[in-house]
Amino acid sequence: MQKYTAEFLGTFMLVFLGTGAVTVAAGSTLTIGLAFGLAITVSAYAFGGISGGHFNPAVTTAMLINRRISGRDAIWYIVAQVLGATAASAIMKLFVGGLGLATNQLGQTDFPKISTGLAFLVEALVTFLFLLVILNVTSDRHGNGDFAGLTIGVTLGFLIIVALNLTGGSLNPARSFGPAVFAGGSALSHLWLYIVAPEVGAILAAFVGRMMGSED
Amino acid sequence: MQKYTAEFLGTFMLVFLGTGAVTVAAGSTLTIGLAFGLAITVSAYAFGGISGGHFNPAVTTAMLINRRISGRDAIWYIVAQVLGATAASAIMKLFVGGLGLATNQLGQTDFPKISTGLAFLVEALVTFLFLLVILNVTSDRHGNGDFAGLTIGVTLGFLIIVALNLTGGSLNPARSFGPAVFAGGSALSHLWLYIVAPEVGAILAAFVGRMMGSED
Amino acid sequence: MQKYTAEFLGTFMLVFLGTGAVTVAAGSTLTIGLAFGLAITVSAYAFGGISGGHFNPAVTTAMLINRRISGRDAIWYIVAQVLGATAASAIMKLFVGGLGLATNQLGQTDFPKISTGLAFLVEALVTFLFLLVILNVTSDRHGNGDFAGLTIGVTLGFLIIVALNLTGGSLNPARSFGPAVFAGGSALSHLWLYIVAPEVGAILAAFVGRMMGSED
Amino acid sequence: MQKYTAEFLGTFMLVFLGTGAVTVAAGSTLTIGLAFGLAITVSAYAFGGISGGHFNPAVTTAMLINRRISGRDAIWYIVAQVLGATAASAIMKLFVGGLGLATNQLGQTDFPKISTGLAFLVEALVTFLFLLVILNVTSDRHGNGDFAGLTIGVTLGFLIIVALNLTGGSLNPARSFGPAVFAGGSALSHLWLYIVAPEVGAILAAFVGRMMGSED
Repeated sequence: MQKYTAEFLGTFMLVFLGTGAVTVAAGSTLTIGLAFGLAITVSAYAFGGISGGHFNPAVTTAMLINRRISGRDAIWYIVAQVLGATAASAIMKLFVGGLGLATNQLGQTDFPKISTGLAFLVEALVTFLFLLVILNVTSDRHGNGDFAGLTIGVTLGFLIIVALNLTGGSLNPARSFGPAVFAGGSALSHLWLYIVAPEVGAILAAFVGRMMGSED
Repeated sequence: MQKYTAEFLGTFMLVFLGTGAVTVAAGSTLTIGLAFGLAITVSAYAFGGISGGHFNPAVTTAMLINRRISGRDAIWYIVAQVLGATAASAIMKLFVGGLGLATNQLGQTDFPKISTGLAFLVEALVTFLFLLVILNVTSDRHGNGDFAGLTIGVTLGFLIIVALNLTGGSLNPARSFGPAVFAGGSALSHLWLYIVAPEVGAILAAFVGRMMGSED
Repeated sequence: MQKYTAEFLGTFMLVFLGTGAVTVAAGSTLTIGLAFGLAITVSAYAFGGISGGHFNPAVTTAMLINRRISGRDAIWYIVAQVLGATAASAIMKLFVGGLGLATNQLGQTDFPKISTGLAFLVEALVTFLFLLVILNVTSDRHGNGDFAGLTIGVTLGFLIIVALNLTGGSLNPARSFGPAVFAGGSALSHLWLYIVAPEVGAILAAFVGRMMGSED
Repeated sequence: MQKYTAEFLGTFMLVFLGTGAVTVAAGSTLTIGLAFGLAITVSAYAFGGISGGHFNPAVTTAMLINRRISGRDAIWYIVAQVLGATAASAIMKLFVGGLGLATNQLGQTDFPKISTGLAFLVEALVTFLFLLVILNVTSDRHGNGDFAGLTIGVTLGFLIIVALNLTGGSLNPARSFGPAVFAGGSALSHLWLYIVAPEVGAILAAFVGRMMGSED
């Protein structure tokens, strides 16, 4: 139960700090990228000792493929992640409304400027790169355990900065689910892409990571 | 005595660097968040080996509940924290006046845009999250001692960024006390909220942290 | 083969995150510097355990001179680096085009405001400083292995910030090659400078580093 | 000799990255603060293993008072620091001139907006705080050796951010000397303050640090 609480809290932190930087804080590109990324860094150091620190269904999928987590735990991790993200977005809606801002602007992900095909490629590619970093930096053989939390969060932050104007930079089905539920509109109708594309990237990374020796 | 000096200095650094970034530096949202947050990080590494590095009455309260500090020390810690914050604000008033700026703008916390109820919720919630990170990252069982200072400061920084437009982002009764004494006005009449709400959040986190195994 | 894959991926990350921050993200000076620099930091922690983490032909040259890598490996490292940078620029061209931006603006390096002589001096000097930091921080005798990745990336980031308005801040022949191939124009006709000047700086640093005891 | 080279290089990096962020990069407040601060961080990790990483005559003075360095070494350290800062400013003048900017704007320190008395207080106070952090974080008894470089640099960065609009934020006689020599004017006639005030702050910190147990 402590494990699932840790996954709930870490994903809550990701959506709370990240979409909070977008909405109530109206932060710069760097602020937004660092808010999402360093939310993962701090949650990994604080809660990762309990659950391993996934905070993302795509990460859990790759860990399942490479047998770092059981199927049973994987399911409950994903449930906890989705609940954590949704709870954070519910609170963010309250904050946004309290400031008199539009309550359908909750930091949701969408791709108004590019084609669906390119959006799919962007999310799959950045999630693929993200997972390659995760799998290698946490590898027993050639990783860096102490700096893994910092590495993973900083990688996420700057991948999001690149993807921000293209797709909003999700890399995480739970992170897109939470705000989309409350924002509705095209964020909700495009939600499938933010579930499928990151999972495709993560699955590919699981195999490439193994070829690089991440599971040796 | 060295312990109380360490708590005085760390809280002085928090208010000096944080409200200095707001006032004389007129910094961006990111600059302000990082100034408050990293003030705690550097003080934790420099002075935390002496006192444990609380620098915040709400942190001291949670540590008292979970028996990581004695009642006697807790009282003197809080006295030192309040004195440190007040000294920093006295100096900041001198700096602000020297530049010809309004001496009632000292980086005090207030909530002009939202209701008292929401302000209370914001401060209680972000302090609750802050303390959950602190209690788990410093846990003997599943924490990360080396990275605790970095984790705690970065968490504070980005929680403040989210709360900045709502409540000013205090999470710390001493941090609100120092500037309010010199700024007066509604910052002083609302000071009670910045004492009670963070303490409520910290007390709740002490119990939830224990359920997560932070004291095992 | 894993070594060359690691060098490909690290250099891909450098150009993807760095030129992505310049082009599709339209980032601030700080965002751009940190994107290039921290790309090296995260790649060093994630992939450096496999290949040593050069991600730059000038770094490989200095390591060859100081006998930290074989001649055979050095050649394949440089091939992998150039391929990684080129692949990242090909993808960045796709992203830039997808947003309807000019596809000859790919974050390439050039020096429109200064003379060729000064541009050569800038690139040689900043690469010289960069390599001195690398050689000393990774020295067995007086280095800091754990913090090497952070040190090297942060150094690169702030050296690029200084050089940005002068030469674009390359310090890396592969990083300049990738975008120049697709952007053409004066970025391509000036490419020789971004190959020769960093190599000159790196070769000088190899000797000065040795005098400072980096190879003892 | 390697020790003095390390001090030359570290102080060169401080002035090169810091004043370069001010002048040729025209960076934001945060960029400038981090450039100065993280220059010390990276130089500490890269060159600190050789010389101890002072890069500042005021630091060397405090270390001399607390017997962490010999009088003979202290003199040569300060000579190397002043030469390193001056060399960096000579090169920065070349860069600034190459871009067609005013060659008397080299990132020098001055206090046009405040009184001499307040400027003295600011520089003495921030250097006092800086040295208290340095002496405690490098203390054998209660310091954090691994994180000392990061702590010291981040502290410097945010102290400079607070002091920037007041005095330019020097905290370092060598850092003020280099640009003042080439910029002339009131930066040169006020140079005495940037020598005396930081030294006063450092001397006070040496005694207070000892009372806090930094030398036990």
